[in-house]
Amino acid sequence: MLSFVNDYCEGAHQEILEKLTEINFEKQAGYMGSRYCESAAEKIRAAISCPNAEVFFLTGGTQTNQLAIDTLLKPYEGVVATRTGHVEAHESGAIEFTGHKVLTIPSHNGKMDAGELHEYVKKYYGDESWDHIVTPGMVYISQPTELGTLYTREELAAIRKVCDEYRMPLYMDGARLAEALAADETLTLSDYALLTDAFYIGGTKCGALFGEALVFTKGNMPERFLSRVKQHGALLAKGWIVAVQYDVMFTDDLYIRGGRNAVEKAAVIKKALKEKGYEFYVDSPTNQIFVVMDKSRAEALSEKVNYTLWEDIGDSRVVIRFVTSWATGEADVKALTEVL
Amino acid sequence: MLSFVNDYCEGAHQEILEKLTEINFEKQAGYMGSRYCESAAEKIRAAISCPNAEVFFLTGGTQTNQLAIDTLLKPYEGVVATRTGHVEAHESGAIEFTGHKVLTIPSHNGKMDAGELHEYVKKYYGDESWDHIVTPGMVYISQPTELGTLYTREELAAIRKVCDEYRMPLYMDGARLAEALAADETLTLSDYALLTDAFYIGGTKCGALFGEALVFTKGNMPERFLSRVKQHGALLAKGWIVAVQYDVMFTDDLYIRGGRNAVEKAAVIKKALKEKGYEFYVDSPTNQIFVVMDKSRAEALSEKVNYTLWEDIGDSRVVIRFVTSWATGEADVKALTEVL
Amino acid sequence: MLSFVNDYCEGAHQEILEKLTEINFEKQAGYMGSRYCESAAEKIRAAISCPNAEVFFLTGGTQTNQLAIDTLLKPYEGVVATRTGHVEAHESGAIEFTGHKVLTIPSHNGKMDAGELHEYVKKYYGDESWDHIVTPGMVYISQPTELGTLYTREELAAIRKVCDEYRMPLYMDGARLAEALAADETLTLSDYALLTDAFYIGGTKCGALFGEALVFTKGNMPERFLSRVKQHGALLAKGWIVAVQYDVMFTDDLYIRGGRNAVEKAAVIKKALKEKGYEFYVDSPTNQIFVVMDKSRAEALSEKVNYTLWEDIGDSRVVIRFVTSWATGEADVKALTEVL
Amino acid sequence: MLSFVNDYCEGAHQEILEKLTEINFEKQAGYMGSRYCESAAEKIRAAISCPNAEVFFLTGGTQTNQLAIDTLLKPYEGVVATRTGHVEAHESGAIEFTGHKVLTIPSHNGKMDAGELHEYVKKYYGDESWDHIVTPGMVYISQPTELGTLYTREELAAIRKVCDEYRMPLYMDGARLAEALAADETLTLSDYALLTDAFYIGGTKCGALFGEALVFTKGNMPERFLSRVKQHGALLAKGWIVAVQYDVMFTDDLYIRGGRNAVEKAAVIKKALKEKGYEFYVDSPTNQIFVVMDKSRAEALSEKVNYTLWEDIGDSRVVIRFVTSWATGEADVKALTEVL
Repeated sequence: MLSFVNDYCEGAHQEILEKLTEINFEKQAGYMGSRYCESAAEKIRAAISCPNAEVFFLTGGTQTNQLAIDTLLKPYEGVVATRTGHVEAHESGAIEFTGHKVLTIPSHNGKMDAGELHEYVKKYYGDESWDHIVTPGMVYISQPTELGTLYTREELAAIRKVCDEYRMPLYMDGARLAEALAADETLTLSDYALLTDAFYIGGTKCGALFGEALVFTKGNMPERFLSRVKQHGALLAKGWIVAVQYDVMFTDDLYIRGGRNAVEKAAVIKKALKEKGYEFYVDSPTNQIFVVMDKSRAEALSEKVNYTLWEDIGDSRVVIRFVTSWATGEADVKALTEVL
Repeated sequence: MLSFVNDYCEGAHQEILEKLTEINFEKQAGYMGSRYCESAAEKIRAAISCPNAEVFFLTGGTQTNQLAIDTLLKPYEGVVATRTGHVEAHESGAIEFTGHKVLTIPSHNGKMDAGELHEYVKKYYGDESWDHIVTPGMVYISQPTELGTLYTREELAAIRKVCDEYRMPLYMDGARLAEALAADETLTLSDYALLTDAFYIGGTKCGALFGEALVFTKGNMPERFLSRVKQHGALLAKGWIVAVQYDVMFTDDLYIRGGRNAVEKAAVIKKALKEKGYEFYVDSPTNQIFVVMDKSRAEALSEKVNYTLWEDIGDSRVVIRFVTSWATGEADVKALTEVL
Repeated sequence: MLSFVNDYCEGAHQEILEKLTEINFEKQAGYMGSRYCESAAEKIRAAISCPNAEVFFLTGGTQTNQLAIDTLLKPYEGVVATRTGHVEAHESGAIEFTGHKVLTIPSHNGKMDAGELHEYVKKYYGDESWDHIVTPGMVYISQPTELGTLYTREELAAIRKVCDEYRMPLYMDGARLAEALAADETLTLSDYALLTDAFYIGGTKCGALFGEALVFTKGNMPERFLSRVKQHGALLAKGWIVAVQYDVMFTDDLYIRGGRNAVEKAAVIKKALKEKGYEFYVDSPTNQIFVVMDKSRAEALSEKVNYTLWEDIGDSRVVIRFVTSWATGEADVKALTEVL
Repeated sequence: MLSFVNDYCEGAHQEILEKLTEINFEKQAGYMGSRYCESAAEKIRAAISCPNAEVFFLTGGTQTNQLAIDTLLKPYEGVVATRTGHVEAHESGAIEFTGHKVLTIPSHNGKMDAGELHEYVKKYYGDESWDHIVTPGMVYISQPTELGTLYTREELAAIRKVCDEYRMPLYMDGARLAEALAADETLTLSDYALLTDAFYIGGTKCGALFGEALVFTKGNMPERFLSRVKQHGALLAKGWIVAVQYDVMFTDDLYIRGGRNAVEKAAVIKKALKEKGYEFYVDSPTNQIFVVMDKSRAEALSEKVNYTLWEDIGDSRVVIRFVTSWATGEADVKALTEVL
C-alpha cells in the first residue's frame, strides 16, 4: 500500500540516528543545559542571521504554539488567526485551555489578508465597548499555511506593518518551514527572523524524530521561560535529545535539503495530476497537494494509496490530500503517478 | 439630559427596597441557606411550572454565563453561539478564561439558525480529525437576543431538536427575559423551562438592584454547584440579598410588569421614529431600538439624549441604540419623541 | 433563638438603604462610570490619606482575593499565605482556579511570622532547582486574621521589610477591617495604606448589603483592570450599587462606628465568658470569640444559640465560635451572657 | 570529571537506537495509531497482568502527572500528596496551572502515612464548611519516592484502603519504577497494577531517550483522553517513537535489567560510603544516595565529581545526592569510591 497520508510517518534523517548513537553515553546536562543545546542554538542563530536570537527546544507543534501564544500574550489578550489556522481549527482548544481567545478573520487559501487584519484591529480600538472585548494581542500565521500555500515577502511585510502599528507581536508557525524554504528561495530563514517576533522551525514534520525549535528574534523571550515551559508540562529532562537533532539538521543544510526533497517529489506528482486533468482545490507550491474528485473515484483510489480525506464538499465530491516528505522516495512517486 | 443608554442605570423596583428595609435585621442563614432563597426558588418553580427546577442566585450576567457554561461543559467541549452572542462578543473572554472555546456560527439579526447549527455539529462528527477539534458540547442562545429580536416557538423547537439529536444541553441567556415575556406572550416562562436545559432569569436589567436567577430545569444542576460557584469567586455570603429581590419580583407578576413597561415605552418610541421616517437597523420587538442615521445627525442628537453608539457602518452613517427599562417614565418618552 | 453565628446575617446600615431609596431613579452610568464610584473612591482616598490610590468596587471577599492575587502575580508566581489564611483554607480552590499556587507557611494564631516568611523566600532563591519551583510572588495576610487576631504595627513593618527585600507586593484581606480599626486605634486606615501595596476594605461583613472596595495604594493597579474583572465574571453592570454604600459608610465614620459596635459587644461577651471561667482557644481582640468546651456542653448550648462549630480538637472537646457584628444589639448580648 | 548528578544524562539502551534505526522508513500511523503503540501496550498489559489496562504514551514526568491528575479529578477536587511529592515541590505549579490544588500531608522520608491520609480526609468530610474547602479527590504517591525510599506492600495496601473508603483514585508516579522493581522484587508490576488506579512506567530516567507510559488499570481512562492530551499540548504526532522504545524495553526484561544495574551500582557506592563512615540523610534502597557532609568537604569533592547539592541543613553541613542509572559503568563506580 502506497502512503502519502502525512509527513510525520517516517523516523528521522539517518544522520540524526547516527549522531544519537555516537554520543549515546556522553553525559549531558539536564533540561536546556547541554552543550548541544548551545551548539544547536548557535547554528540556528547563524542560519537566521540573528546573533541575539533566543532558542528553546520543545516537543511538538501544538505545544509550541500554546507556549508561545500563552507567554507572549497578556492575560486579557487574544491571538488573531485565520479560520483555517491550526490554533483555531485543529488543536483541541489548546489555546483556550490556557485562557486565551483565538480571534478569527477570513482565510484566503489559508492566508491572512493584511487589509482585513488592519480592519479588524482598527475596529476593535474604535469600539465604544472595547474594554469588554478581547484585545487582539498578537498575530498568528503559518508558513507554509495549513493549505500548503505560501505568503510572499510583500504579504508578510504588509502584515508586519499592521503588527507594528498596533504593537502586536507577529508569530509564525513553521511546522513545515523546510518546505517553505525549499519552495520559495527568495524568502530565507533570515527574512523570517527579521519579519517575525517569534517563529518555530519545525522538526517533527521536517526530518527529526520529534521536536521543534522555538525562536524569539527580538530579545523578547518571555521572562522565566524555562519555568513556564515546565509549568505547561513541556520541559524535557533530556532537552539535548531535541537539540542534537537540530545540531545535525543545521549542519550542511540538511534541514533545507529535506524540504527540497518533499517539494520536488510533490512537484512531480502535481505535474502528473495536471496532465491527467485532475482538478486542484488550491494551488499549493509546497508538499501538500489538494485534489478535488468524485467520492467514488476517491474510494477506489483508497484501496491503493493512503491519503487524507480533507473535506466533503457536497455533490458527491471530496477533497483529498497527498503529502510528501523529506523521506519520500522516487519509487513511491512513480508508483503513485501510475495509480492516478 | 435625556437618557436611553441602557436598562441598568436605575436602582430597583420600589417594592424591593421596601422589602429589604423591612427585613433588614432578620437574621438570615449564609450563602444559599436563607429561607428567602427557598421561598424565591419556590416561586420561580411555580412560575415556570417546573417543580423540580434547581435555582441558584448569582450576581451578574457574565458571571452566570461563565458558570453555567463552565459547569455544564466537559473540559474538552466548547459552546456553540452566534457571532453576535454576548459570550462571544462582549464578555472580555470570560468563557475562554475557564478553558472553553466559543464555537461560532452566523447570526441572523442576533438569532441562530437551527439548520446552520445542525450543519455545524454534523460536520464536526463527520470530520476525520474530530478528536483534534473542540467538541460542540452545548448551545448558547439569548432571548431576547443582543439585537432585541426574539426567537419564535418554532425556531426554539428546531434548535431544541438539534440539541436532542446530539445530546447538547440548550442554555438560554435571559438577561432581559422580562421584556421577552412581555413582548411575546405566546411564549411563557413555562415554555422556556421546557425548551431549555438551563436558563437564567435576568434581574440586573429587569428591575433588581443586581442579581440573576440561574435555573436548571432537568435535574441537571452540576454536582457540587455551590463549591464551583465559590471556586469561581461568585458565591455571595448574603445570597439572600438576591433571593429576596426575586421573591418580590415573583410576587404579583412584578417581574413581567417591569418588562411590560419597557416594551410599551419602546413601542411608543418606535412608532414615533417610524412616523418620522427613521430607518431601523433591525426590527426589534423588545426594549432595544436600533436606528441608522447620518453621523452628523447622531452627533447633534447626542447633545440632548444619551444613547449607545452601536456601530459605524461606513458612508458617514452609524447605528445608534435607544433602550427603555422597567423604570422608563412617560415624560421621558414624550421628551424623546419631541427631540427626534 | 439567639444567633452569633457570623457577621453577614443582617442587611445593611439603615443609612445605606435610605440612600439607595433616595437615589433610586437617578440615572447612573454603567460599570465603574457613575459619579458615586468617583465620590466613594474620593472619600476612601481621603480616609486612607493616599491621594493617588486606585479603588475598584467588587462583590465579595473570595472574588476580591482571587482578582487581586491573579492580577498582581505573574503567571509563574504563587502567593505566600499562612495555613489558616482564607485563600488557602476556605475558598474552594479559587486561587488555584486561576492557575496560581498558594505557598504556605505556619500560622501563629492566624498570623504570619516575618522571620519565617524571610526564611521561606530566602530558601527559595537559594535552591539550585529554584526554576522548577513556584516563585513566591506576593504575600497575603488578613487583618483581622481568620482567628480574629491582629497584627501589630511592628509585625506588619517586619513583613513589609521582607516584601521590600524580595520585591513582593503585600496584599491585605480586610474582610473585617472595620473591626481591626475599632479594636486597635493605633493602626489607622492610613497606616494600612502605607504598609501594603493593595488591600480591601470589607463591606459584606461590615455593614453593607454586599461589596468590597479593593484599593491599590502604590499606583500599581494592574493594567486593563476593568477588563480583567469582566474576564473573571466579576464586573457589576451597576457598579454604583456598591459605590453608593461606601459613599455612605465613609461619611461621618459610619464604617468604623459599625466596627466599634461589633468589638464592644464582643468585649462584653468575652468578659462574661472569662468571669464564668470559660477557656479561650485564642485571645482575639476583635469580633470573633473562640471558646473551647466539652462537646456535650456545646450541644446543650446549641439549643439556645446559633454559633459556628469551629473544630473538633479531640478528647470530646470542641472549639466553637461566637461572632458579633455592626448590627448586634444589647439585648442579644445580654441574653447570651445569661445563657452561658 | 565523574558524574553522578542524575539518571537522565545518558541516551538510551543500545537496543532502542538499533530498533529506531531498523524501522526508520517503515511508515507509521500518526498519534497513537501505529502498530507499535498497540504492540508496546500489549507487552505492558502482559507484564502487569492486567489484560484490560489502557496505555497512553507521553513525553515527560511532569506532563504525565499533570495529565493524569487533571483528567482523573473533577474540576472542584484537589490531589493529596506529601510535602516532598514531586507535584507539590518541583513542577513549577503545573498542577495548579490546570486549576487544581495540591493538598499536602507530611512526608516521612518521602513517604505518605496511611493513617495521616485517613485523618486528613476524615477531617475534610467532618468539617461544617466542607463545601468551601477543596475536596480530596485522588491520592498521589511516587515509587520510589523523591528520596529514593520505597513503600512496602503493607504500606501501599493501607493507602489503598483509605482510597477505597473515600472513593479516591490512587495514582503512582513511577518515574524511576525500574529501580523500585529491581530493589524490591517482592513488589512486581502486577502488584502495582492491582494496587493503583493509574500509574506511569517511567522511561526518561529508566533507559529511554524520553517518554513515559501512562497506564489506567481499572477501565478508568478518562473519556476522550486523546483529545485532552492534545488540549494539554502533549500529543506527539509520532507517538510511535515512544511506543517503540517501550516495545524494546518490555522485551526480555530490558526495562528491569536497566533498573537492576542502577540499583546494584548504587549498592556498591553505599557500601563504600558506609565503610568510610559517611553519614546518610535517608536510607534509600534504590539508585539515589543522600549523604550528609561538611560544606568544605562537599566543595572539595565537587572538583572531582558532579553531584546534586540537595539541601543546606545549617551548621555548615549540606546534603548531597549521587545518582546511578541504567547506564552507570563499573569503572565510574570504582573511580567514585576511590575519590570518596
